Amino acid sequence: MFNKIGQEDIKVFETIFGKEKCFSGTEIESEYAKDEMGTIISYPEIRVIADNKYQISELMQYANQKRIPVTVRGAGTGLVGGCVATRGGVLLDLTEMNQIIELDQINMTLRAQPGVLMLDIYDFVEKENLFYGPDPGEKTATIGGTIATNAGGMRAIKYGTTREWIRGLEVVLPSGEIIKTGGKVVKNSSGYPLKELFIGTEGTLGIIVEATLKLTSLPKFSTSLLAPFETSIKAIEAAPELIKRHVTPTAVEYVDQTSLKYSNEFLGKHMPHDNYDAYLLLSYDGTSKEALDADITLASQLCLELGAIDVYLIDTEERKDSVWTIRGAFLEAIKASTTEMDEIDVVLPRSKIASYLEFTQDISKKLNLRMPYFGHVGDGNLHIYFCRDDLKEDVWQQKLKEAFDVMYDRAFANGGLVSGEHGIGYAKKAYLEKQIGATQIKLMREIKKIFDPNNILNPDKIV
Amino acid sequence: MFNKIGQEDIKVFETIFGKEKCFSGTEIESEYAKDEMGTIISYPEIRVIADNKYQISELMQYANQKRIPVTVRGAGTGLVGGCVATRGGVLLDLTEMNQIIELDQINMTLRAQPGVLMLDIYDFVEKENLFYGPDPGEKTATIGGTIATNAGGMRAIKYGTTREWIRGLEVVLPSGEIIKTGGKVVKNSSGYPLKELFIGTEGTLGIIVEATLKLTSLPKFSTSLLAPFETSIKAIEAAPELIKRHVTPTAVEYVDQTSLKYSNEFLGKHMPHDNYDAYLLLSYDGTSKEALDADITLASQLCLELGAIDVYLIDTEERKDSVWTIRGAFLEAIKASTTEMDEIDVVLPRSKIASYLEFTQDISKKLNLRMPYFGHVGDGNLHIYFCRDDLKEDVWQQKLKEAFDVMYDRAFANGGLVSGEHGIGYAKKAYLEKQIGATQIKLMREIKKIFDPNNILNPDKIV
Repeated sequence: MFNKIGQEDIKVFETIFGKEKCFSGTEIESEYAKDEMGTIISYPEIRVIADNKYQISELMQYANQKRIPVTVRGAGTGLVGGCVATRGGVLLDLTEMNQIIELDQINMTLRAQPGVLMLDIYDFVEKENLFYGPDPGEKTATIGGTIATNAGGMRAIKYGTTREWIRGLEVVLPSGEIIKTGGKVVKNSSGYPLKELFIGTEGTLGIIVEATLKLTSLPKFSTSLLAPFETSIKAIEAAPELIKRHVTPTAVEYVDQTSLKYSNEFLGKHMPHDNYDAYLLLSYDGTSKEALDADITLASQLCLELGAIDVYLIDTEERKDSVWTIRGAFLEAIKASTTEMDEIDVVLPRSKIASYLEFTQDISKKLNLRMPYFGHVGDGNLHIYFCRDDLKEDVWQQKLKEAFDVMYDRAFANGGLVSGEHGIGYAKKAYLEKQIGATQIKLMREIKKIFDPNNILNPDKIV
Repeated sequence: MFNKIGQEDIKVFETIFGKEKCFSGTEIESEYAKDEMGTIISYPEIRVIADNKYQISELMQYANQKRIPVTVRGAGTGLVGGCVATRGGVLLDLTEMNQIIELDQINMTLRAQPGVLMLDIYDFVEKENLFYGPDPGEKTATIGGTIATNAGGMRAIKYGTTREWIRGLEVVLPSGEIIKTGGKVVKNSSGYPLKELFIGTEGTLGIIVEATLKLTSLPKFSTSLLAPFETSIKAIEAAPELIKRHVTPTAVEYVDQTSLKYSNEFLGKHMPHDNYDAYLLLSYDGTSKEALDADITLASQLCLELGAIDVYLIDTEERKDSVWTIRGAFLEAIKASTTEMDEIDVVLPRSKIASYLEFTQDISKKLNLRMPYFGHVGDGNLHIYFCRDDLKEDVWQQKLKEAFDVMYDRAFANGGLVSGEHGIGYAKKAYLEKQIGATQIKLMREIKKIFDPNNILNPDKIV
């Protein structure tokens, strides 16, 4: 079905990208065979570093004609194998297409190449008192990667996911044609929403070569509250009430003693007031200090009414840094605590979170499998980890399969979806089909065929 | 290509929907041959009123097999012929599927049938201190219709368009299969975004039979400001500055003396302070009165700095009602001022609005064609009307074509799109192709084929 890359092909790639931007065979470092999770491992036959969209267009025309698979890679911070070249072929590295092209102050848009890192986007726009809403946990992800997975992050409850912040895209199609969809405009009812089709489809329909992001005024003030509760259930059940009865927080994170312990060990530091079993970590922002203070006062009262043992204001830079560093390190800390791990990234209706986490604890005991978790309880998105520790390969694989099966079944029965923000990639394909059924999978496969009749762009992913 | 409806087919439809819900031949009233704009006129062969999704599923299975076209209709308030049965066949009337199914206070979602009117949705949720963001001008539109056109409205600048408020959809496919996409969840990175494909595609890919809407807390306080300026250009140029330098308003509307005059005549009433040439009408909302007052004070100062002659607070119910009734009546008032009209609904980058409206005035003079306009200058969406008045048919058609051509060309050259919120329907197809080009039109046509291989669902629309 696909052709292997030969010497002649390599010459063509070297002509397109320059010899110094092409790496094949043993020149390819092991990090380019996997993503951040590392569960899916496959080497590309060649890694090429792109400098501009015209090279990408040429590459796709050639690869399409020669039936050579092409997999796009940004910073490689994904967790489901989306950027792994499972069929070999070309790994198209976009990390050097990392220029911010234009900040338009009047239309409040930012045009950026796909390889710009999230932390660079925040730095750039916040200096201008502007704000980009999506805030995925991984700040070294590229903007292109976050668009490809429709990344969410902690602020999704108030500011939505990446999709809502993308005004326009320029895309190289698998045929090599370059199209623009959307623009700097706020509204769009102009035909089928092709822009939406490139968002969240993990680089399977086209290659994003430029994005126009929506910006808003920077909310000048923000404060967090740390509210300990007696039990995890009490904390989690308080979350939807807090959201309903008050202004929308920017984040509602669930933190428990187990996750804290991993972070403490990993970072060698503690957050203040960390002697309780379960917490809600809440953030609020605003445009005036007075209004924010009023919101915070009301939020604190509500927390106490809803059963919080206490409420701590996380308002100094030092306290903010400490708490959010600890919270931000959960994934890395859990990873460091075990030999190998896998995860589910289900998203559920908020009302189902508490019972789902009880179920998680039961399954963990039943399977005798360590399953730490944390999550954006405000938006119903949970990250639950399966830790191998010292299990033998066959036992690990068996427990893993059992765990995935029961955890997804329970999620789907509760109106949940496979992925809130990490995507389907290679790892979660079977569960997507289980969730949405054959009719929708067939529609997705046919959409894929329209854009990529030869299936050369990121094959094996999603459907 | 399509088959005409015979007596046998009518019997089948009567069995599915009940005899009293089927209307054919002369029983079909003239309003069902057109939409609100009335420029596209075509009678269906039969109008059927649906009561539930199972009937619709049966209808589609039958129509698909018999190659009978089906066009979906809500309240018929569209402006581009989207709900007109241009090929005859079945007009599927969803206005009696008008039940609110479930308000979920914890997940802050509302499940509704497609025929629920917007005004009923606002009433229902606001009583519960909840809020649905999109606010299209036409409050008697159905929720299904606003999803089909991805309707925007005045609050889009702060709250986005319909797309951003739809969490889940249940859809009958042209094959008759019923699918669910999305749900009550906040985030979704689970495969190709089929939900997005049903939004804004004007009933050409599937029939929405249930929608799950996102709700937020109701902003308890809101106030409007009316700021007169010496010239339209000064007013329009102030708009993006106001948005950039301050919190995002809920609406930034441009109002001029011409539009006011039509409304005064149409409604027989005046708004206060209506003796100026050009205005910005601004709204702000908030959760506390103090914060809103602070925002309003700052907004007023900014208006004056940016050249406003004065700033009037529209804060009593009486003043609000007067100003917004006048503003809300513009479309009806312009319609009443002429014998026949057509419109463009371009959306442009905010920065291009002022020069585009100067261009509009030039074209109006050059073509000697009356072209009143108003618009959501905050989000770059303009509604510009071409009035026939006493022009003869051939002259009118010629001027109309010239006007459409130059107005769209100019919009596209400025990064604008054909439609901000009214859609493409039947009337704007040629201009969509002009804007996006053959490659994207081809992709759209192929997507249509996947969902509707026999082209029976709302044929002739969009592509």
